[in-house]
Amino acid sequence: LAQELAGGPPELFALTLARHFVDNIGPVEGARVTIEEYPWERVSVDGRPHAHTFVRRGGGNRTTTVTVEGSGENQRAWVVSGVTDLVLLKSTGSEFRGFLVDEYTTLAPAIDRVMATSLVARWRYADSVGDTHTSEEFDWDGIWNGVREVMLAQYAQVHSFALQHTLWEMGKGVLDGQASVVELRLEAPNKHHFIVDLTPFKRSNPGEVFYAADRPYGLIKAAVERDDVPRAELAWDAWPPVDRGPG
Amino acid sequence: LAQELAGGPPELFALTLARHFVDNIGPVEGARVTIEEYPWERVSVDGRPHAHTFVRRGGGNRTTTVTVEGSGENQRAWVVSGVTDLVLLKSTGSEFRGFLVDEYTTLAPAIDRVMATSLVARWRYADSVGDTHTSEEFDWDGIWNGVREVMLAQYAQVHSFALQHTLWEMGKGVLDGQASVVELRLEAPNKHHFIVDLTPFKRSNPGEVFYAADRPYGLIKAAVERDDVPRAELAWDAWPPVDRGPG
Amino acid sequence: LAQELAGGPPELFALTLARHFVDNIGPVEGARVTIEEYPWERVSVDGRPHAHTFVRRGGGNRTTTVTVEGSGENQRAWVVSGVTDLVLLKSTGSEFRGFLVDEYTTLAPAIDRVMATSLVARWRYADSVGDTHTSEEFDWDGIWNGVREVMLAQYAQVHSFALQHTLWEMGKGVLDGQASVVELRLEAPNKHHFIVDLTPFKRSNPGEVFYAADRPYGLIKAAVERDDVPRAELAWDAWPPVDRGPG
Amino acid sequence: LAQELAGGPPELFALTLARHFVDNIGPVEGARVTIEEYPWERVSVDGRPHAHTFVRRGGGNRTTTVTVEGSGENQRAWVVSGVTDLVLLKSTGSEFRGFLVDEYTTLAPAIDRVMATSLVARWRYADSVGDTHTSEEFDWDGIWNGVREVMLAQYAQVHSFALQHTLWEMGKGVLDGQASVVELRLEAPNKHHFIVDLTPFKRSNPGEVFYAADRPYGLIKAAVERDDVPRAELAWDAWPPVDRGPG
Repeated sequence: LAQELAGGPPELFALTLARHFVDNIGPVEGARVTIEEYPWERVSVDGRPHAHTFVRRGGGNRTTTVTVEGSGENQRAWVVSGVTDLVLLKSTGSEFRGFLVDEYTTLAPAIDRVMATSLVARWRYADSVGDTHTSEEFDWDGIWNGVREVMLAQYAQVHSFALQHTLWEMGKGVLDGQASVVELRLEAPNKHHFIVDLTPFKRSNPGEVFYAADRPYGLIKAAVERDDVPRAELAWDAWPPVDRGPG
Repeated sequence: LAQELAGGPPELFALTLARHFVDNIGPVEGARVTIEEYPWERVSVDGRPHAHTFVRRGGGNRTTTVTVEGSGENQRAWVVSGVTDLVLLKSTGSEFRGFLVDEYTTLAPAIDRVMATSLVARWRYADSVGDTHTSEEFDWDGIWNGVREVMLAQYAQVHSFALQHTLWEMGKGVLDGQASVVELRLEAPNKHHFIVDLTPFKRSNPGEVFYAADRPYGLIKAAVERDDVPRAELAWDAWPPVDRGPG
Repeated sequence: LAQELAGGPPELFALTLARHFVDNIGPVEGARVTIEEYPWERVSVDGRPHAHTFVRRGGGNRTTTVTVEGSGENQRAWVVSGVTDLVLLKSTGSEFRGFLVDEYTTLAPAIDRVMATSLVARWRYADSVGDTHTSEEFDWDGIWNGVREVMLAQYAQVHSFALQHTLWEMGKGVLDGQASVVELRLEAPNKHHFIVDLTPFKRSNPGEVFYAADRPYGLIKAAVERDDVPRAELAWDAWPPVDRGPG
Repeated sequence: LAQELAGGPPELFALTLARHFVDNIGPVEGARVTIEEYPWERVSVDGRPHAHTFVRRGGGNRTTTVTVEGSGENQRAWVVSGVTDLVLLKSTGSEFRGFLVDEYTTLAPAIDRVMATSLVARWRYADSVGDTHTSEEFDWDGIWNGVREVMLAQYAQVHSFALQHTLWEMGKGVLDGQASVVELRLEAPNKHHFIVDLTPFKRSNPGEVFYAADRPYGLIKAAVERDDVPRAELAWDAWPPVDRGPG
């Protein structure tokens, strides 16, 4: 199978492999396959891309988790694709104020702040009549790239009133642009960049020196879905645990 | 200090900070500063780089460790710069055979293999009369980029007889091209991509399906230095431990 | 709250904190709190436990995740407790054979093997009429210890035909012994200890030398539940992500 | 070799293995072997230790790194043993005040604080005439346990004026008690437990509620050695990198 499907989209490989187990192995009634794909780019030598040497680039890893259950006409399939390790930062265009204040509130409002995160996003595919997209003709690669592109553009262009607000606009942008996506689940740790208070040293700090904290932090989770979203059933059970694998 | 030196090379910032502690704080006789710099690129929106939004890219993090000791005319300084997390892979142009064989040898020779690693490289600067380069005029950024470029080019272009051989050629290439670098230390885990043996299933596997193993592995370490290298003294004590920090 | 509830079971603290947010903060309709508790023991000095010095011990961390939703009489609560990082090994009393064989099978049957895992277990509490146990009188500590004890005893005493078999017996043992537990979810990576094949060197290896591999591995997941288990609703949404925190 | 040396101290196994490579394999002039040993205890079933089932316990992993160089009468050997992952906490008996204050100081003095760390300690063996202890008769296990015991006792019993002070007393205690140890190197991240300031909420906090921070932190390093310590030569080159292995 690996030989036959080399180079195709990971979703198709996962579908074929999961169906192989369910269809061909007696006792297997359901199967789930998760794939993680790492991005590479060619090493540049004398200004030209090298023929067979690659360097790992950033920009997020592509993931997919496919669940197949049942046999024959009753066979069902769910496809959840996503991106992990997508580290984003905007140096302005972000504020956080006007929040609920009670007697325990110590956080000061921010009118201009650095906003950064390491995004994990996953989205579920389904077609207009509620079935899951599993066809070979489906443009898995093009749609995956389109979803990622919209999320990046929204992160950049939305003037953010909160990381939660930005996540909502990212999800909304994807649902508006991609008819085959019916639901997104996003996890975004708030990677704080706190402005350092230099007033004890009688210096001002006009957005120049920050402390990049990773604790304490808020791990913001958001789900954005269509009003008429078909039921998820087994799709999100597919949410894989964090893999501490090779990378 | 952070305000004054913003945007300059990390080596200069580390030198200034270390000297501040040694020169201005009574009991401090020596100081060591380590900096790690992460690479970012602008998010592309509608094909154009965005004004204030960035995505972490790969290609390795830049590091520097500076050690300063003593005061006045006797003050010494050592600068070791480097790159970490530089993940490289070449899909051909690599072999491993002709090695020593004894009664415990089970490894088969390979005439064409995938070679991959996650490189950590560090190199020590010193000038022609043996003193350490610590001047502000020194082109820290240009030389760092030059060292990285030569290492990538050598990794790509050298037909490799062993990962050790490639490391040697990478180090030699840097010493040949950069007069200010006198010694390199390289750590390269052998990230094996074993060809899967499909003969039990009566199929051939002409370089198509690999198993990306990360254990067991060899962690190859190499030091490459000039014949007339000045003594390292405290420079390599500066080798920092692995930081499990924010990233 | 932290002051008032200090020293009590983490489940009670999580319940109180989650209810605080839902009951007292206007816009909050639901809340989820996850707690991880690390085990410590007193340092022994001259054979006696020291008054105020502790060393982290193993044996697994205690976790709980509490979800509260709704207000007044309609308020619901779900409690899922668990243990993570419980590293277990049995040096005999484990086999794996008689499994399904097809044309792709290369695994050899094992009649006596080392079986090891790093267990993550979580279990859901509910009372006999289907409501969730959330009472202060509930013996959170005693039951947590009881569940852990039964799992360890089953791991030790069951002659294992597969890690899956052992997980089933561990879950069954808990359900038999603890009326308040209605469902368990277990994750157990198969930490292989492969016997090293010394026949190329003309030596036998009667269970003496092993290779402790961690890849490739099977991450075995199992759910064990009562026949009449009440619906889980939001309970398992509570399954927390892996925390990379201080530890 | 693994069969013959099973059950003996890791230092002896490492010595034998390193010498095998240097003595028996033509081109090898030097070898370094690092071993990590994990602690286990028997699972308790019905109050009795089980015959063949074990649970990983805490209290630190034992390590050793042995370097062998040269042949025949000129062969040299260095042994550095240690402990990693030894997580310690004392809830009182620790202060930090009277430190140097300049215009950048914001840290407040503490007269009673929680002090915690995750200790990595390594120590070098040498005998009274400067040669390295490599004999089979040497009590590797007993001395290793003795060193660990003294360090724990000092951590507990010394009233600490700083983590640095405690490390010094730990090192001194070992050198006083163990004639064969000539030098220790200690790494101790300051795992802060900051008292939470409840005064904004008009509550006192008499040592009840802490925030367990892991960043920012100081990674305290200390070396403690005898006045007449023999030269270390290759011993500390042996300091192994952090292994992200199976565990």
